[in-house]
Amino acid sequence: MIVIAENLNVRNKAYMEAVKNQDKKTIESLSKTLADKGADIINVQCSLDGIGDEETLPLVADIVQEAAKLPLCLDSRNTEALKKTLTVCKEPPLINYLSQDEENTDEILSLVSRFKASLIIRALKGTVPTTLEAKLLILEDLIEKANAADIPNERLFADPSVVHIGGGIGQEHLLNTHECIIALNEMVDPPINTIAWISNISTGMPKGVKSRINSAFLCYLSGAGLDAAMVDVNDAEIMKTVYLIRSFRDEIVFSSADIL
Amino acid sequence: MIVIAENLNVRNKAYMEAVKNQDKKTIESLSKTLADKGADIINVQCSLDGIGDEETLPLVADIVQEAAKLPLCLDSRNTEALKKTLTVCKEPPLINYLSQDEENTDEILSLVSRFKASLIIRALKGTVPTTLEAKLLILEDLIEKANAADIPNERLFADPSVVHIGGGIGQEHLLNTHECIIALNEMVDPPINTIAWISNISTGMPKGVKSRINSAFLCYLSGAGLDAAMVDVNDAEIMKTVYLIRSFRDEIVFSSADIL
Repeated sequence: MIVIAENLNVRNKAYMEAVKNQDKKTIESLSKTLADKGADIINVQCSLDGIGDEETLPLVADIVQEAAKLPLCLDSRNTEALKKTLTVCKEPPLINYLSQDEENTDEILSLVSRFKASLIIRALKGTVPTTLEAKLLILEDLIEKANAADIPNERLFADPSVVHIGGGIGQEHLLNTHECIIALNEMVDPPINTIAWISNISTGMPKGVKSRINSAFLCYLSGAGLDAAMVDVNDAEIMKTVYLIRSFRDEIVFSSADIL
Repeated sequence: MIVIAENLNVRNKAYMEAVKNQDKKTIESLSKTLADKGADIINVQCSLDGIGDEETLPLVADIVQEAAKLPLCLDSRNTEALKKTLTVCKEPPLINYLSQDEENTDEILSLVSRFKASLIIRALKGTVPTTLEAKLLILEDLIEKANAADIPNERLFADPSVVHIGGGIGQEHLLNTHECIIALNEMVDPPINTIAWISNISTGMPKGVKSRINSAFLCYLSGAGLDAAMVDVNDAEIMKTVYLIRSFRDEIVFSSADIL
């Protein structure tokens, strides 16, 4: 189970304030905490729409990787920003993400290929499709395009796009998100990695239940074979859950003292 | 997800005292609580070795089914007791269990067949085998024998035998328990049900972590396709987890208020 810290995103006020003010110390401190809490990779987002990322992303990414000594996941829709940031990355990052909405697909693929980066491919085309078939069709198309650009499956992370459980057809989505993980593990050869942004399931839920829903869903998708999860690394409950999943998979030696 | 209450077992002192004293009121009250807490089926055990079950099991089973208005899971190694109890069961129960250790396999199978009961078949032969292959070999043999006795797969519940996470090769066991659920779902046709005694994973663990380990493991196996779980129905944490699994599977309509 690869743990990607979702924490450095636009909803994190302290972080965004620090990004705005180029407050290196705060970004360093936030990054170190994420490493201490057990992140394997840190996702770095500086805006939702990518505007201005060409200035902020390389700067922030550099501070984060220095402080945390971890690889990065670059969360931007701005290829100019990605290009600049890829040149400062000490090890090939994960690029978050390519969907069927991008107008610059070829450019993204060429960057990923050139820098030997990994790539999240998302089941997304305008909206998140409601059926398993539609999700798989998008992902298959993106795998094909990535392969054609010389990006092997081992560097691809397929994301079935988790939506929140509360809203209307949310549960139908969760059902086929789970099925999508299983189908990808069964059907794609050579094997592809699967990834999910776990916290999305509890968007809009009362604070008191978020952690429980996220933890249960992380275990549930892991049972289906999930390889990587974007989670709130500062949530102790989630990190205990990650510990348990790694124990169930016999990846670490379990001790009850570690989750007390 | 079928929830089987494990609670009426020999480790439950209040219950065993009531069994000993034929204290109908206490058994009724314990049973009603299990129904209220959300059990679908109640497991009834009166001894570990089956001695005396021919007296106690039919009596207790009758009290439990009357009070809880639920089907039963008869947990006894005593075929005489099973036979007597099957005649008082209002609906065909689940028989817990048949392994490769029984000397009276034919008798058990014939009872299950005659009373149209369901049957838990356990990956067990002396001890719990350490490899996936050994577990599957035992289960395949038991499926074959059950089918030959006219018990269709839809009335079989295969149990990979959960062992505790703490002890020596415990984690290797958990790994192949998970793989066993997946393999059974993929390989057996017509489909068989899968079942796990969840609490076994946390045997010997400190009280403060049992619930967390059990809940995580239940979600994890459910993600792999587990159909039924033997759990502590009085553990609110576990029942919230069951609620979430049913929500993820779109079997019920989710409301955050239900798990607050």
